Amino acid sequence: MSRPGKIFTKMSKKILILGASSDIGLETVKYFLKNNCIVTAHYSSDKKKLLKIKNKNLNLFKFNLTKIKSFEKYINKNSSKISNFDTFVSLTGYMKLKNFFKISSSDLMDHFNANYISNLLVIQKILNKMKKKKWGRILLASSIGTKFGGGSLTMSYSISKYLNEFFPSEYKKFYKHNVIINSLQIGVTDTKLHLKNKSKNMKKRIQLIPINKMASTSEVAEYIYFLCSEKNTLITNQVINISGGE
Amino acid sequence: MSRPGKIFTKMSKKILILGASSDIGLETVKYFLKNNCIVTAHYSSDKKKLLKIKNKNLNLFKFNLTKIKSFEKYINKNSSKISNFDTFVSLTGYMKLKNFFKISSSDLMDHFNANYISNLLVIQKILNKMKKKKWGRILLASSIGTKFGGGSLTMSYSISKYLNEFFPSEYKKFYKHNVIINSLQIGVTDTKLHLKNKSKNMKKRIQLIPINKMASTSEVAEYIYFLCSEKNTLITNQVINISGGE
Amino acid sequence: MSRPGKIFTKMSKKILILGASSDIGLETVKYFLKNNCIVTAHYSSDKKKLLKIKNKNLNLFKFNLTKIKSFEKYINKNSSKISNFDTFVSLTGYMKLKNFFKISSSDLMDHFNANYISNLLVIQKILNKMKKKKWGRILLASSIGTKFGGGSLTMSYSISKYLNEFFPSEYKKFYKHNVIINSLQIGVTDTKLHLKNKSKNMKKRIQLIPINKMASTSEVAEYIYFLCSEKNTLITNQVINISGGE
Amino acid sequence: MSRPGKIFTKMSKKILILGASSDIGLETVKYFLKNNCIVTAHYSSDKKKLLKIKNKNLNLFKFNLTKIKSFEKYINKNSSKISNFDTFVSLTGYMKLKNFFKISSSDLMDHFNANYISNLLVIQKILNKMKKKKWGRILLASSIGTKFGGGSLTMSYSISKYLNEFFPSEYKKFYKHNVIINSLQIGVTDTKLHLKNKSKNMKKRIQLIPINKMASTSEVAEYIYFLCSEKNTLITNQVINISGGE
Repeated sequence: MSRPGKIFTKMSKKILILGASSDIGLETVKYFLKNNCIVTAHYSSDKKKLLKIKNKNLNLFKFNLTKIKSFEKYINKNSSKISNFDTFVSLTGYMKLKNFFKISSSDLMDHFNANYISNLLVIQKILNKMKKKKWGRILLASSIGTKFGGGSLTMSYSISKYLNEFFPSEYKKFYKHNVIINSLQIGVTDTKLHLKNKSKNMKKRIQLIPINKMASTSEVAEYIYFLCSEKNTLITNQVINISGGE
Repeated sequence: MSRPGKIFTKMSKKILILGASSDIGLETVKYFLKNNCIVTAHYSSDKKKLLKIKNKNLNLFKFNLTKIKSFEKYINKNSSKISNFDTFVSLTGYMKLKNFFKISSSDLMDHFNANYISNLLVIQKILNKMKKKKWGRILLASSIGTKFGGGSLTMSYSISKYLNEFFPSEYKKFYKHNVIINSLQIGVTDTKLHLKNKSKNMKKRIQLIPINKMASTSEVAEYIYFLCSEKNTLITNQVINISGGE
Repeated sequence: MSRPGKIFTKMSKKILILGASSDIGLETVKYFLKNNCIVTAHYSSDKKKLLKIKNKNLNLFKFNLTKIKSFEKYINKNSSKISNFDTFVSLTGYMKLKNFFKISSSDLMDHFNANYISNLLVIQKILNKMKKKKWGRILLASSIGTKFGGGSLTMSYSISKYLNEFFPSEYKKFYKHNVIINSLQIGVTDTKLHLKNKSKNMKKRIQLIPINKMASTSEVAEYIYFLCSEKNTLITNQVINISGGE
Repeated sequence: MSRPGKIFTKMSKKILILGASSDIGLETVKYFLKNNCIVTAHYSSDKKKLLKIKNKNLNLFKFNLTKIKSFEKYINKNSSKISNFDTFVSLTGYMKLKNFFKISSSDLMDHFNANYISNLLVIQKILNKMKKKKWGRILLASSIGTKFGGGSLTMSYSISKYLNEFFPSEYKKFYKHNVIINSLQIGVTDTKLHLKNKSKNMKKRIQLIPINKMASTSEVAEYIYFLCSEKNTLITNQVINISGGE
């Protein structure tokens, strides 16, 4: 058993992160790098902050995940490379604000593509190799918003995140090979986005959180790391709420 | 209060049913017709059995719901007609059997389109009129399969049905106007489809059902009717299991 | 199949109701009597209203269910009589208002005894006979309050009701013999009790209910009857929410 | 933020553990001691193994928790001492094997007393002090068995554990003061008890666990420690499954 104060050994694992340019994504990338992992980080448009992380173990790649057919081709062409990852974390968070009554089929598609189908395509490629290696960690970010049906403008986002909480029966066959798969309902987090509108609305929203404060990105990154680490051997097939009691 | 033996008054409501040509669909159509409703029944390919129901209160229309853009156009063009329905029941059950590792983004799209987005497009059109009329019943069929992650070949189907179990926060604003919205997890039902392969596999499946038998289509139709009737005033925002204890 | 407008045939079943002197209880008794059932109704203290129901098919008996040892003796002595019931409905609602920090072990016991253990003792006696008769309906009332952890003063009540939502694996063996067992989360209901304090607090409470009104006792009684009738063949092993969207 | 490899700082907290003489209990005691905590460990009968842990920071006390009135008196008399604990972990596991149809009210009481009411009495004493200190961790062990209704002989045990999964609304008021309260559904664990009957039945049971093996006591102890550590700031008000995918 590990000595106290040394819960996690350095992992040296190869990690794929989709949606790495968000504030949570950045913190997660740093956390894995700090623990000697080799990180391949996906971003959809803005890589400025990712570039600031100078680390030879960080690789970046760009993709607009709403263009799912191109992503599918890319995945199929690079399937041997994809299948090599030890850990897959999806933090995709495509969100187009739109009133419930104005949502079109294209809006839904875009969200399903970027926030769910992209994940599934990756998972199809990596599961069997994980089984062979007898190691695999998959963590798909959902949002606490799914629990409440999303906001007036974020229904498309919420339902696409909700999809990440569905566990196909197929997954069960992999758990015994040390492949651990979970979904994470992340609570309101203190990101740049939220800081901007730290107006009356945000204050009201925070009052709904039992712990009465937003999560920090580093708190969230630690839970992500924990659930993907070798320390997590018993939690699988679960939707975990890290949302301060909501 | 109603006299015993006369729980339901004749409704004379206008009902829209998507996916009416399945065995459950047919029985549901008959049940509403018998109760003096005017039924508009959608089918995707085969209308033979629907045509056998000779009833002046039955209207049929055909649509391939995987072609969601055309359906969207149709809905938008006929929005005043669509918004007139008092009750909306979705029994869509598009299912393409495909191994989990072979599912493509198109496969998923087709299922999402036919089994979920179609429903949402209808709901967007009818909610506000229902509110004005102070009457509305919406029932979206899901499947008990969603609870277990679907079978090896039915993951696409199961996850598209799962979407019907998501209740947007937007719905909550309508409940106080006598608009009742639920989802139904239908258990294994004794349909033609299942009869065909009443082989060893089906027998094994039935043994997993605590009541140890399949539901009949007429049993299922009665629950659908009940939840859409004026008798159901308290059950809303729920996923109801009619699956014999699973 | 039943003709429209005649969903329920007259049942002529023998029903045992615990907690029949509440407003919901009274309405439930009447509902079963009206449908030709023979009702044995339990009350704990006040039988005035029950006595006003003049019906030869109604039998009353008194018991303080917090005195569980006496009730257990009574049940054991009369086990052949108890085992004869076709349907068992528990509406027990013992409630002592007490601040969370003042609840004693005795308070909890009293609630567990009256609201749960009493039910279990009855169920132990009737299950096997139901199996033989190939007919049985059991419905245990819980409260929507359990979903939210109860109020400041009603924690003991809420947790005792919560117990009714636990389905022992043992029950599963009976479902295939047409023994149907469910629990009901009843929403805020328009009872005498609530009418009294229809003050500011009650108005606030009602605003939390999506349908924006209390249930009526007769609405609740109809759901109870439906779930215990021969019409309910598919819903078993479930916690059903009749709470207007909460 | 903590440096990698040093997730947990030494806590030096005062911990109360009920049910510490079980195999999981022992491992949990050791884990907290190793992390510089001062542990007060309760046992009901056998303290042999606890005595083998030679550590000046370990205090033992004995109590038969089925005798709830005595425990209540003890708690009330020593309330200032009790209220001093920073962390409270309940691993009580009183279990009397008894057929479902033979369970008496006393059997249920004994289980409720030892496995739930004891916990509640402690919590009542410590919550307000935790609030003042702005630190508190409470973790109540439940069992994965509650999910499936318990075994044929363990219904009393399962339902008493189920009680630990109920979160009174009262708790919500404490979360904002850094008081974190969770329940843990522990999966089948490799304890002496289970080793004994590692017969055909145990093998069958293990096959039902998706990860296809029992948890080790040290794995379980680590999760307990994590959820009670200063590292856990976002998971509260939750039932966490550490059961290998069940």
